Amino acid sequence: MIRFECDYAEGAHPKILKKLFDTNFEQTPGYGVDEYCERAKNKIKKLCGNENIDVHFLVGGTQANLTVISSILKPYQGVVSAETGHINVHETGAIEQTGHKVITLPSGDGKVTAEQVLDIYNSHFEDSLREHTVQPGMVYISHPTENGTTYTKSELKNLSKACKKCNLPLFLDGARLGYGLMAENNDLSLEDITNLCDIFYIGGTKIGALFGEAVVICNEKFKKDFRYNIKQRGAMLAKGRILGIQFDVLFENDLYFEISKHAVDMAMLIKNAFSQKGFKFLYESSTNQQFPILPNDKLEKLSEKYSFCCWNKIDENHSAARFCTSWATKKEDVLNLIEDIKKL
Amino acid sequence: MIRFECDYAEGAHPKILKKLFDTNFEQTPGYGVDEYCERAKNKIKKLCGNENIDVHFLVGGTQANLTVISSILKPYQGVVSAETGHINVHETGAIEQTGHKVITLPSGDGKVTAEQVLDIYNSHFEDSLREHTVQPGMVYISHPTENGTTYTKSELKNLSKACKKCNLPLFLDGARLGYGLMAENNDLSLEDITNLCDIFYIGGTKIGALFGEAVVICNEKFKKDFRYNIKQRGAMLAKGRILGIQFDVLFENDLYFEISKHAVDMAMLIKNAFSQKGFKFLYESSTNQQFPILPNDKLEKLSEKYSFCCWNKIDENHSAARFCTSWATKKEDVLNLIEDIKKL
Amino acid sequence: MIRFECDYAEGAHPKILKKLFDTNFEQTPGYGVDEYCERAKNKIKKLCGNENIDVHFLVGGTQANLTVISSILKPYQGVVSAETGHINVHETGAIEQTGHKVITLPSGDGKVTAEQVLDIYNSHFEDSLREHTVQPGMVYISHPTENGTTYTKSELKNLSKACKKCNLPLFLDGARLGYGLMAENNDLSLEDITNLCDIFYIGGTKIGALFGEAVVICNEKFKKDFRYNIKQRGAMLAKGRILGIQFDVLFENDLYFEISKHAVDMAMLIKNAFSQKGFKFLYESSTNQQFPILPNDKLEKLSEKYSFCCWNKIDENHSAARFCTSWATKKEDVLNLIEDIKKL
Amino acid sequence: MIRFECDYAEGAHPKILKKLFDTNFEQTPGYGVDEYCERAKNKIKKLCGNENIDVHFLVGGTQANLTVISSILKPYQGVVSAETGHINVHETGAIEQTGHKVITLPSGDGKVTAEQVLDIYNSHFEDSLREHTVQPGMVYISHPTENGTTYTKSELKNLSKACKKCNLPLFLDGARLGYGLMAENNDLSLEDITNLCDIFYIGGTKIGALFGEAVVICNEKFKKDFRYNIKQRGAMLAKGRILGIQFDVLFENDLYFEISKHAVDMAMLIKNAFSQKGFKFLYESSTNQQFPILPNDKLEKLSEKYSFCCWNKIDENHSAARFCTSWATKKEDVLNLIEDIKKL
Repeated sequence: MIRFECDYAEGAHPKILKKLFDTNFEQTPGYGVDEYCERAKNKIKKLCGNENIDVHFLVGGTQANLTVISSILKPYQGVVSAETGHINVHETGAIEQTGHKVITLPSGDGKVTAEQVLDIYNSHFEDSLREHTVQPGMVYISHPTENGTTYTKSELKNLSKACKKCNLPLFLDGARLGYGLMAENNDLSLEDITNLCDIFYIGGTKIGALFGEAVVICNEKFKKDFRYNIKQRGAMLAKGRILGIQFDVLFENDLYFEISKHAVDMAMLIKNAFSQKGFKFLYESSTNQQFPILPNDKLEKLSEKYSFCCWNKIDENHSAARFCTSWATKKEDVLNLIEDIKKL
Repeated sequence: MIRFECDYAEGAHPKILKKLFDTNFEQTPGYGVDEYCERAKNKIKKLCGNENIDVHFLVGGTQANLTVISSILKPYQGVVSAETGHINVHETGAIEQTGHKVITLPSGDGKVTAEQVLDIYNSHFEDSLREHTVQPGMVYISHPTENGTTYTKSELKNLSKACKKCNLPLFLDGARLGYGLMAENNDLSLEDITNLCDIFYIGGTKIGALFGEAVVICNEKFKKDFRYNIKQRGAMLAKGRILGIQFDVLFENDLYFEISKHAVDMAMLIKNAFSQKGFKFLYESSTNQQFPILPNDKLEKLSEKYSFCCWNKIDENHSAARFCTSWATKKEDVLNLIEDIKKL
Repeated sequence: MIRFECDYAEGAHPKILKKLFDTNFEQTPGYGVDEYCERAKNKIKKLCGNENIDVHFLVGGTQANLTVISSILKPYQGVVSAETGHINVHETGAIEQTGHKVITLPSGDGKVTAEQVLDIYNSHFEDSLREHTVQPGMVYISHPTENGTTYTKSELKNLSKACKKCNLPLFLDGARLGYGLMAENNDLSLEDITNLCDIFYIGGTKIGALFGEAVVICNEKFKKDFRYNIKQRGAMLAKGRILGIQFDVLFENDLYFEISKHAVDMAMLIKNAFSQKGFKFLYESSTNQQFPILPNDKLEKLSEKYSFCCWNKIDENHSAARFCTSWATKKEDVLNLIEDIKKL
Repeated sequence: MIRFECDYAEGAHPKILKKLFDTNFEQTPGYGVDEYCERAKNKIKKLCGNENIDVHFLVGGTQANLTVISSILKPYQGVVSAETGHINVHETGAIEQTGHKVITLPSGDGKVTAEQVLDIYNSHFEDSLREHTVQPGMVYISHPTENGTTYTKSELKNLSKACKKCNLPLFLDGARLGYGLMAENNDLSLEDITNLCDIFYIGGTKIGALFGEAVVICNEKFKKDFRYNIKQRGAMLAKGRILGIQFDVLFENDLYFEISKHAVDMAMLIKNAFSQKGFKFLYESSTNQQFPILPNDKLEKLSEKYSFCCWNKIDENHSAARFCTSWATKKEDVLNLIEDIKKL
């Protein structure tokens, strides 16, 4: 079985394993205050073009989301998200467990618009009984989204502007950030994201690391005492240097971007194969996730050799599937898949 | 600087790194349902002498504690713990954050006694206004304790009996379990612990792994849906096989016990050196943590070459320090320390 | 200004005030274990046709909802509700604050159907990644709903059956229960509700009391230790007898039903007046809340003399309003309103 | 049975009931924005000597404590309290349920000292691993305390100064505030308390009201959006005017102080009777709670005619009891008790 079902089916980039091996018996202090974390943070600061950001390394995405969101909101506030947002559908209510409602916005493509933010904010504060409803307290987006779509620089600028107008911090979930930054049509840089968001994270788990997300706090207001939140949520790794080492390697000589590009290139090959065969897509994605719509029997045929996700039932005879590539996807596997798509 | 300040200063046992390397490009499903997790679970079941236990791999200790405790208690219940318990003092209120009080018992040596459990339970239920106070809902112990002390089989049997009498689940935090099981005076086996506790975990972070704790659920009542709790608390590793591989290696050919014994042996050398020099100890420990009481100037002298924890001020001129060994402690470093203790 | 904006604009039924006055200097134990609470509970048990139910008196509706729901759900479970449910829109996220997601179902009339429950349950458990989503843990309905609609006996039977099939406790919010029970088309009795629900409450705040909701626990499983939950949520009134006295009076000689009927009668007069004038309604309600759709200028005209809620914008020129009657509504005020409706 | 067991055995001051009766059919808006609430707030502002305070009326003490405390603390902070504090022992873990640890200080008399605050604050911030422990986030005191003791102006000034130095908001639980203000040795005024505390409440439940606590927010920082917190915690009374009316009556012509003084006078009579008979007291109290230490057989004798609390076992043969007076205590009952004390 060749797996295209997700972007975390393999281990880590070999350079990471090598560095873990080479440094294994060094003795460092625990909890992320070692020199490897320091080096990785400095690299990230440089890439973000801002020496004043704070960087923290957490283990995983749900953990990062719940730690960040609960650190920002007041008890009576909720987080605004597309209804398809990961925090709303795939985290077992982790955000609600911290006491906060996820306030959902309808979204066809997984994105949130500036207009939606202005609307939900204004309609809350225009309500004379507003104290009886959850106050919007921040905005959560992901880039790329769960649907593989991405924000343009202009869209993110507008959204950021709307958030500032409403005094709503903007938090970007970048679990697949590399795959967004290396998408063909992308015009956003890490620097832009640093300027436009209050807080975001750079995903490692899905892009070359064994695990790990680098949380970047841009807004001064949210920096204080963040490490208490990390510890309280069980998110402070004792051997913190393992996170530091991984991000240090990922951001050495642009490795992160290089392997992200590989995944996107592989996804484009698959996209073209489906497209040339005349299949449509559920979402227009230029990142590592592709959602072709196929007749059920053809999907079944493919599933004999390949694993992928059944995303959505379209009608009685058609379904949308999700094919994922990653930093570790082998070109040979992709070429095999393409051959089999052609034969469908 | 030679570090005796904690048992998580190095990386992982080389055999673990090797296995991570060898399996790196295998594709496995995520979230802990891969074959490596399966193999590790089976080994643990065998060691515990019980095929019916459930085993789950979590990343760290605070995470394991908060996930387990919040999965067992009803909203109005608290967890009974020694006042020195890790959950009470060193987890930034993680348990309270899940909504539960830590009900503390005074404890000189870090242990909880059967009598204390019976007393606190009875005094709660004898109170006519008991509904105004937190109901004891479970008992938390650690083995070894934060003070390096351990339970004898007889003590644990009595405690377990008291808990059963009070219908209070018994949870054992085994972050340093190996160091307890390999202590000279130990008469407890993994099998005993499985029989006497409702739930416990086998620590990997401090004993040879990069990170990881194996939660063992013995009581049928607490097995259902535990994975939802793991996910909700942000404790479900996407690449779950990394945890499976680590525990699979640790329990291959008794590696876990062998490296635990090494740490204890090293600690005994240090203990003897302090003892022969006439120093007393804050706690009587036969595990990998030693708490000698020294004049402050002598501690300062040692701190020029060695890092260790300043645990407690004893009087104006004396303090207790904590010296930790681990699976990775080099004999050569211990011998150097012993030489320097002799010279004090 | 004559108020039809809500059903809690006045104080309490005079018989309640009289009884509070007459018993004022009696000394009783606190916290709801006095003889007035006992008498009120016995009356409710008789009306419900079940000696084995548990009855608890709480102060208000949001308090009752959050106390009940958080006492039933496991941490990773959510409560299923119509998207218009009070817990979803008008309690400032009180349920989420207790750690639980409100899982919403689309609903035109404010009701939840048996089919919806079966669907949401099945689709959760058929999902192979179900542990990544919130597990449905109970079903919340209100009767009458926020929209003034009511369940027929047959609908509630089907819903109850579906819930039992899915092992989902059914909780009925009866903040306006009297107004539902006295609706013309009603075929449900308190006895039916007791048989078909696991837990429900009989609203006092909106039906004759100064404040107070009588929570009735029918399912044995949820009775144990409920008073701890009440106390922990700050919902245990020190002078508990004030609640007992009020419900004792309300259920003396069917006062509760008599005054509920009055409110419904007054609402029907208003309904007919709008209807005869040719206005349509947003929801078909036979209870104390009526939602006529009027041209905006006519609503403005009415608002000069009467206060009511602007519920919904229908189009550029029309809006739906809510007119509420209550146990305290004066017939004279209603007749005046009718005259003014005729003149529109 | 004559009850001295608590200060909430009767209903409300007759003037309150009369006003509730007189205003019963007036129609007012709900949720505490009516004119009675407004009038009561204005009276309280005048008494506190500060037009800028915010006043909110809540139903009960536990509710007030949990709403206030959870509105102030950040997720990783705890509230500092005497170990005997009501929030620590008699609220079923209500504070922990909101996610926060109660950080306890030893206290013989129920009071917290300035030195204790400075110590706990400094020792937290001097700890290099402070992020692993709960950060002190505010200080909770009660006046009078659970032990009937009171703060002198000088003590409260010092405490307030210490809190300001540590940037810890000071919250005073005044469930029995009137009984403290009317104690013989009292030198504190409402104005002083307003100046020295960040937030406090004036208890009504135990002093003449059916129920109700007036929360006073002095510090600008904690005023914003407080009503959201009230609603979310289920603490916003629909018929808010019932609270407004009660406090309006209580602060009309100093009724609150007059009836408080009565309770203290009655308590002093009881105190003297025990004292003259040679009995000692567990705490030195000049408020409405008295804690005489008596031989068990004599307590048993008294318990034939009077109900009171058994507070503490002193030794095999002696116990401390609690006798409570209130605004409603009848002098005749007190005189009877005194006669019976004399006969012991």
